[in-house]
Amino acid sequence: MDRRPIGVFDSGLGGLTAVRQLRRMLPGEDIVYFGDTGRVPYGPRGRDTILQYARQDIRFLLSQGVKCIVAACGTVSSTYPAEEAAALPVPYTGVVGTAARCAAEATKSGRVGVIGTAATVRSGSYEKALRALRPDIAITAKACPLFVPLVENGFIEPGDPVAALVVERYLAEVRASGVDTLILGCTHYPLLRPAIADFMGAGVTLIDVGQMTAVAAAGMLGERGLLNDGARAGTARYYVSDTPEDFAALETMFLGEYAGGPVERIAIETY
Amino acid sequence: MDRRPIGVFDSGLGGLTAVRQLRRMLPGEDIVYFGDTGRVPYGPRGRDTILQYARQDIRFLLSQGVKCIVAACGTVSSTYPAEEAAALPVPYTGVVGTAARCAAEATKSGRVGVIGTAATVRSGSYEKALRALRPDIAITAKACPLFVPLVENGFIEPGDPVAALVVERYLAEVRASGVDTLILGCTHYPLLRPAIADFMGAGVTLIDVGQMTAVAAAGMLGERGLLNDGARAGTARYYVSDTPEDFAALETMFLGEYAGGPVERIAIETY
Repeated sequence: MDRRPIGVFDSGLGGLTAVRQLRRMLPGEDIVYFGDTGRVPYGPRGRDTILQYARQDIRFLLSQGVKCIVAACGTVSSTYPAEEAAALPVPYTGVVGTAARCAAEATKSGRVGVIGTAATVRSGSYEKALRALRPDIAITAKACPLFVPLVENGFIEPGDPVAALVVERYLAEVRASGVDTLILGCTHYPLLRPAIADFMGAGVTLIDVGQMTAVAAAGMLGERGLLNDGARAGTARYYVSDTPEDFAALETMFLGEYAGGPVERIAIETY
Repeated sequence: MDRRPIGVFDSGLGGLTAVRQLRRMLPGEDIVYFGDTGRVPYGPRGRDTILQYARQDIRFLLSQGVKCIVAACGTVSSTYPAEEAAALPVPYTGVVGTAARCAAEATKSGRVGVIGTAATVRSGSYEKALRALRPDIAITAKACPLFVPLVENGFIEPGDPVAALVVERYLAEVRASGVDTLILGCTHYPLLRPAIADFMGAGVTLIDVGQMTAVAAAGMLGERGLLNDGARAGTARYYVSDTPEDFAALETMFLGEYAGGPVERIAIETY
């Protein structure tokens, strides 16, 4: 049993979709979340920049005495090297491995789609993880760089014609490739789920990395005996690198019933 | 006469629309450009964050021995305080003043529209400048936060239905207010000019802040006797805070016939 908080970070607020699932799944755990809202998005940036930012994010969470690090960010999870993660003083998990495992189990046809940011797709991370599980799998990967700005600017109402048109633009070739399973490889994408589900059709299973991140974190803590005892309701503290007002404006969209909790600004470049 | 380079900066690559106009207008000038591609966009961020980033950008340009600073960024121009600009060791200009002057002259009906990032519209900068020139002017301002991501992700082909739909969403109330002049208050927006012109109609004059920035810079240098002699063709050097590869991929879109020139990465957080 370990009462220290779980550390979760993301390039911005997309990772809050994972926090929502974590709070649902592990209601006794305390959570410290960092969203790098002063430097979001990570997805279009180069590898070196993403690594520099991720290392600072992790150092900040470690300074908060967390018992594990959860990278609730498809871009970081696809970029941060496994050997570096293994050398951290606390256990680390990203979003890729569990999402790939779940997709490999879900697919019947052996055709799986992966969508994510430019950096995620460029890294080939989901492909590598999927091929390691099922070498015969056929993968169609597609970068969807406008999805994060669509979500962050509120183009997420069911039936929004802009979202529908952008989904069609990006996903036409994925649908045409006949996938029966699609990994939504970025923690922002669950917010676009209605538009993506409409376009892909009911026969396609959508794998939500927000949820998969929470599953991965719960599994990691359980295996290592690091879960909290659940004697009291867990709390959540939020840190951001830009003004906390924007967090307040968007948290309901991402956190749903778990919105609320103290938010503080930090100078992430000093970590 | 002054042979030192002109320093130009922007949150990212939108300011290159101003560089293109500067090179056309002042072909004998050398230019040093900094695009903060590691932290773009500035428009959705809070005032403190924008100021911190702008000060670092300016310190970098000063370290390059520039003869003036041109903020080719609607967001910075709307946020950076005039008194701080006046205290810089070289002359400074942004995009707001000249664009407002041009709009005040162009409007016949006295109804002017202003579009820009969230930070630009929140600042009220264009309104203040317009009202100082013509107190009776009626202004309709609208933040268009998806325009920068649309441009940066290539949704700029004439007739692109996504661009048309987003333009309609943001500009419907601006058109309905009966403006005859519209300030495109962000240096990315000239790339969306065809879609904006189509929607607003031929009767509306569009003021391009990329061009206005170049006009402002040329005027400032001329007044102070700081122009180069033009004996040889000017050069341009580019600096970015993310990988230079992305610059290479996008520069033709922004610079047109002036694409090319050395690009180097710098660590802007150290300035």
